[in-house]
Amino acid sequence: MAEHPPSPIPAEGRRRVVVSNVSPELDGGRFAIKRTVDETVAVEADILADGHDQLAAVLLYRGEGDEAWSEAAMAPLGNDRWRGWFRVTRLGMCRYTVRAWVDHFRSWQRDLGTKHQAGQDLTVDLLAGAQMVEAAARRAGEGGATQLAAWAEVLAGRAPAPWETRLELALSAPLADMMGRHPDRGLATTYDKELRVVVDPPLARFGAWYELFPRSLGQGGRHGTFKDVEAHLPRIAAMGFDVLYFPPIHPIGRAFRKGKNNNPACLPGEPGSPWGIGSAEGGHKTIHPELGTLEDFRQLVRRARAMRIEIALDIAFQCAPDHPYVKEHPEWFRKRPDGSIQYAENPPKRYQDIYPFDFETEAWEGLWRELKSVFEFWIEQGVTVFRVDNPHTKAFAFWEWCLAELKRARPELIFLAEAFTRPKVMYRLAKLGFTQSYNYFPWRNTKHELTEYFTELTRSDPREFLRPNLWPNTPDILTQYLQYGGRPAFMVRLVLAATLGASYGIYGPAFELCLNQAREPGSEEYLDSEKYEIKTWDLETPGNLADLVQRVNRIRRDNPALQDNGGLRFHAVDNEQLIAYTKSTADRTNIILVVANLDPHHVQRGWLELPLDDFDVPDAGSCQMHDLLTDARYLWQGGRHYVELDPRFSPAHVFRLRQRVRTEQDFDYYL
Amino acid sequence: MAEHPPSPIPAEGRRRVVVSNVSPELDGGRFAIKRTVDETVAVEADILADGHDQLAAVLLYRGEGDEAWSEAAMAPLGNDRWRGWFRVTRLGMCRYTVRAWVDHFRSWQRDLGTKHQAGQDLTVDLLAGAQMVEAAARRAGEGGATQLAAWAEVLAGRAPAPWETRLELALSAPLADMMGRHPDRGLATTYDKELRVVVDPPLARFGAWYELFPRSLGQGGRHGTFKDVEAHLPRIAAMGFDVLYFPPIHPIGRAFRKGKNNNPACLPGEPGSPWGIGSAEGGHKTIHPELGTLEDFRQLVRRARAMRIEIALDIAFQCAPDHPYVKEHPEWFRKRPDGSIQYAENPPKRYQDIYPFDFETEAWEGLWRELKSVFEFWIEQGVTVFRVDNPHTKAFAFWEWCLAELKRARPELIFLAEAFTRPKVMYRLAKLGFTQSYNYFPWRNTKHELTEYFTELTRSDPREFLRPNLWPNTPDILTQYLQYGGRPAFMVRLVLAATLGASYGIYGPAFELCLNQAREPGSEEYLDSEKYEIKTWDLETPGNLADLVQRVNRIRRDNPALQDNGGLRFHAVDNEQLIAYTKSTADRTNIILVVANLDPHHVQRGWLELPLDDFDVPDAGSCQMHDLLTDARYLWQGGRHYVELDPRFSPAHVFRLRQRVRTEQDFDYYL
Repeated sequence: MAEHPPSPIPAEGRRRVVVSNVSPELDGGRFAIKRTVDETVAVEADILADGHDQLAAVLLYRGEGDEAWSEAAMAPLGNDRWRGWFRVTRLGMCRYTVRAWVDHFRSWQRDLGTKHQAGQDLTVDLLAGAQMVEAAARRAGEGGATQLAAWAEVLAGRAPAPWETRLELALSAPLADMMGRHPDRGLATTYDKELRVVVDPPLARFGAWYELFPRSLGQGGRHGTFKDVEAHLPRIAAMGFDVLYFPPIHPIGRAFRKGKNNNPACLPGEPGSPWGIGSAEGGHKTIHPELGTLEDFRQLVRRARAMRIEIALDIAFQCAPDHPYVKEHPEWFRKRPDGSIQYAENPPKRYQDIYPFDFETEAWEGLWRELKSVFEFWIEQGVTVFRVDNPHTKAFAFWEWCLAELKRARPELIFLAEAFTRPKVMYRLAKLGFTQSYNYFPWRNTKHELTEYFTELTRSDPREFLRPNLWPNTPDILTQYLQYGGRPAFMVRLVLAATLGASYGIYGPAFELCLNQAREPGSEEYLDSEKYEIKTWDLETPGNLADLVQRVNRIRRDNPALQDNGGLRFHAVDNEQLIAYTKSTADRTNIILVVANLDPHHVQRGWLELPLDDFDVPDAGSCQMHDLLTDARYLWQGGRHYVELDPRFSPAHVFRLRQRVRTEQDFDYYL
Repeated sequence: MAEHPPSPIPAEGRRRVVVSNVSPELDGGRFAIKRTVDETVAVEADILADGHDQLAAVLLYRGEGDEAWSEAAMAPLGNDRWRGWFRVTRLGMCRYTVRAWVDHFRSWQRDLGTKHQAGQDLTVDLLAGAQMVEAAARRAGEGGATQLAAWAEVLAGRAPAPWETRLELALSAPLADMMGRHPDRGLATTYDKELRVVVDPPLARFGAWYELFPRSLGQGGRHGTFKDVEAHLPRIAAMGFDVLYFPPIHPIGRAFRKGKNNNPACLPGEPGSPWGIGSAEGGHKTIHPELGTLEDFRQLVRRARAMRIEIALDIAFQCAPDHPYVKEHPEWFRKRPDGSIQYAENPPKRYQDIYPFDFETEAWEGLWRELKSVFEFWIEQGVTVFRVDNPHTKAFAFWEWCLAELKRARPELIFLAEAFTRPKVMYRLAKLGFTQSYNYFPWRNTKHELTEYFTELTRSDPREFLRPNLWPNTPDILTQYLQYGGRPAFMVRLVLAATLGASYGIYGPAFELCLNQAREPGSEEYLDSEKYEIKTWDLETPGNLADLVQRVNRIRRDNPALQDNGGLRFHAVDNEQLIAYTKSTADRTNIILVVANLDPHHVQRGWLELPLDDFDVPDAGSCQMHDLLTDARYLWQGGRHYVELDPRFSPAHVFRLRQRVRTEQDFDYYL
């Protein structure tokens, strides 16, 4: 034999069990999966050993700072796959892994039964069992040592007992249970990774967002203030929103400021875009003076929270040319060969009003710490929800570090990533720590598109790390569907967003007012966009959707099935313009069926396939469908159901499935 | 903010590229993929960065002991997926990983083109490019420093050149090429794992195996010897086999020896099973005296190799009660409470002639080293191919260590795992280091079963780590299909094994002689099995399949498409008894179509869907199908083809697809 290095023989070669293919596990454990408080984590693993022994396994889990692991039993599913689950109860990071071992006692008990049936001599087998029970007695301590020791005596024939009694004990469930409680784990194998789950507040999973520009809430053309926003809080709360989100609230740069409709030549007095951040008045830690004071802002946050509304801030890491950072930290920006600072570009487009940070700067550590301190500043003012602008144009490594640091200190924080970019970049950002993500919902308008996309998000890998927040419109996105579909298009997109997504949002009042004029054909920009000018709104415009929004948000709050995306299933309708899906709670106590007409122009009708059996509807498939939008009620039976939707009146049904009560003694026939 | 530990800011936060989701990668890099010498490894990865910069990536690879990485360029496939490949040229372990970086020069060149088309001022842009070219000149050394420096002068306008020349140079391919050769990798990201590929000899991928019991080759009832085997070598070589595999060749235990048909009461003079290893004469390192001497064995190995046949030994790690280990190392076996040694059991079955090793023994290290030394002993005698008996009843950790140690010293070794067990256990053993694996082929008899199973093996994960070796029969397995299908069943199973599997084997002469009598109904054991008695064979029995075997093995050697499983594709036939599949080389120069009649009793006919376009057949889809079994030739055109197979004559076509030559000047119309 050729010479070769000495054998790397393992430290303990007797561990016969292997644990592999654990799920959920993201990128080999590199990233944490996501849950909210009180949700469960179901964990599966392949658990194998050589030979034919019985195995046993537990799921181990512990929260940050817990000394010891908690345990949950795992059970075999067949094909060497095992499953267990635990509930996360505290905000912050939680860890889990899997431990498994050869269960010699259960192997022995199984074999003993077989040999007994075959009439074989079991004398020696009973002695072998007694040895295992004695060993368990030594492990058990007060939890069962006495009982086990006594049983061992019986098994071994040292205590007086007839043969039948010894055998019955050997094969008994109480002995198996007690032995299961004191297993021999001396040669147990623990999975070689500790996997992580980040536990967020319920608002990370379920919430309705409302975006508005505070500056447009002033009376009679006056620049709106935080005080004006306060006056609007009751209206927003009445509509049922949980988060009120503002575009950046900082001083707006003057150099290269953009005018109305993104005009490069800004006229005197034009307010500029809130995303052109920074001027002599200050930067990312300063409030635009016309909005009010820092104390006004703090008061707004407090008053909103009293109405169960969180104020969300937009964090856009970019600078107007007159942002104080540009003078104080020129090393954070890229210099051009002529000495000027590189402005943002997407050739041939040039954004001379915006300087991006240079994440390849040698001074990156200082830059990272300063950017993190921007979040910290607003957290100090009471903000816990952030919408992050274009995170995909800032370094991934920065986000991973920054979000982990912030959440380690304040695990209740929520970060919504506004990354409209390629799928893998969106997925990466979600894995890096963003709590929620904007997504392609605005451009998924047909039944095929919606079905495929939401099946991907809720039924494949992304469900573990990407929480979609669904926006039918934003200040940057007025889709063609909304432009050409009129009021019915707004209605159906609202219902889709609010029912497909446990989290959704609208940019208002543009949305409720059904604003649908684009800057030019082919553009998704609003004509006379609020991004570049102060608007005044007539919130009482006839046909506005405030009532529908309120009703939809009420339905969401009343129905737990809509507060999660896990229970989403699509159903067949024989009309491509009609989409149907259910959301149900795991325990089936709440089942919502949405049928929507995606054609905003015509009445559409068709047959829906919805086998009521699938929803455990008793009484031969009879149930009541209660349309929560119109309050109409229908009796359905069987698997095929006729639906017809006129977009002028209601482009969707949002049914709650109510099961028939089985006794006639109740006045109400339906639960 | 709450107190929390200091920030784990990364050492280098400026690396903007991330490399993830590399494939092939087994269990997060825990296991090596498999290749044979001169095969290629195509590697894909998700490669992303923030923003819109152009990226560049290379695949890095190196053999064991290589100081430096070799590089192969990777190219984008779309959707942020990249691909590159390399060829493995040396036996042993090879490593690979992926490195990627932001390519500022290519980003600049792309943007420059766009800006130029938009008519923008490029003065400063050209200066920026010149800076990058200067920096590349400093990196280039003799490889291009002078050229790059000169080009930088032109770009910067310091060398006299008209504006058009500067611009043309800036956008030119030669500049891009030269810059691509001297990239700035200062902030490159290397994937965080080095993945491994184990490179085996070609015989690991492609070979025909023949199993026989040497003791049955004696004349007139005499115990056969290695000398007798030598006399048979020409016949075996003529049939076209590459590996000649023997059941264990060690002394056979006497205690509890099994008689004819596994009779627990052995009659005097009965030889026992070769798997009952060990007696006073010796154990796993000793030759059964009646077979010959160690020198006889060595000579047989040499003579076989001279005929291009490798002798494969069966390594069965278990002991007869009179094996020397039992006395010398009682600590390697499990003791029962009555002091006896635990024999093998599969309750209610008892195998009192077999003592298994106890892999949970505290003396496991000594046991492991001794078992490894068994392989080493036979390697010293010239053996390089081992068939391992029931590896799934020995500890996984042992195999991983043992096989790695043996192959590190002798990378040409081949280990075939005989693990007929649950799928995940078979997969685990293959990952742990077994070169080839027995599999479920014997029990995959219908078109659906064969299609599903071989699609799984050749088109999903297992293709990277499990090389199936297909056996229609073994001394333990006489399937119902063979029992009841007669000679046509043997013929079709031979063709299937030899064409579906680049590696296949038969247990002979039982196979060629179409032995099909089971011990009893429902059993897969041979009646009067050779396992328990010495047989004599009439190899000239009329109807024997030696000629067919020879022909099939000839076809395999002549057609590279059959020497690999990668190119396997199934095709539709409108008859469930007819299966059709092609194997083709990557370059399409060799394409084999097999159509087999799975019904051994009846003529079957049907229409095959085989769009010749898929095989790049020119001339409007006309080609010649040459049946290599019968030498018949057919002209086919288009996508649907009639096939009819009579199992009495030939239950299968093995067509070579021959393309029509386009000129009439050749005498032979078909290549």
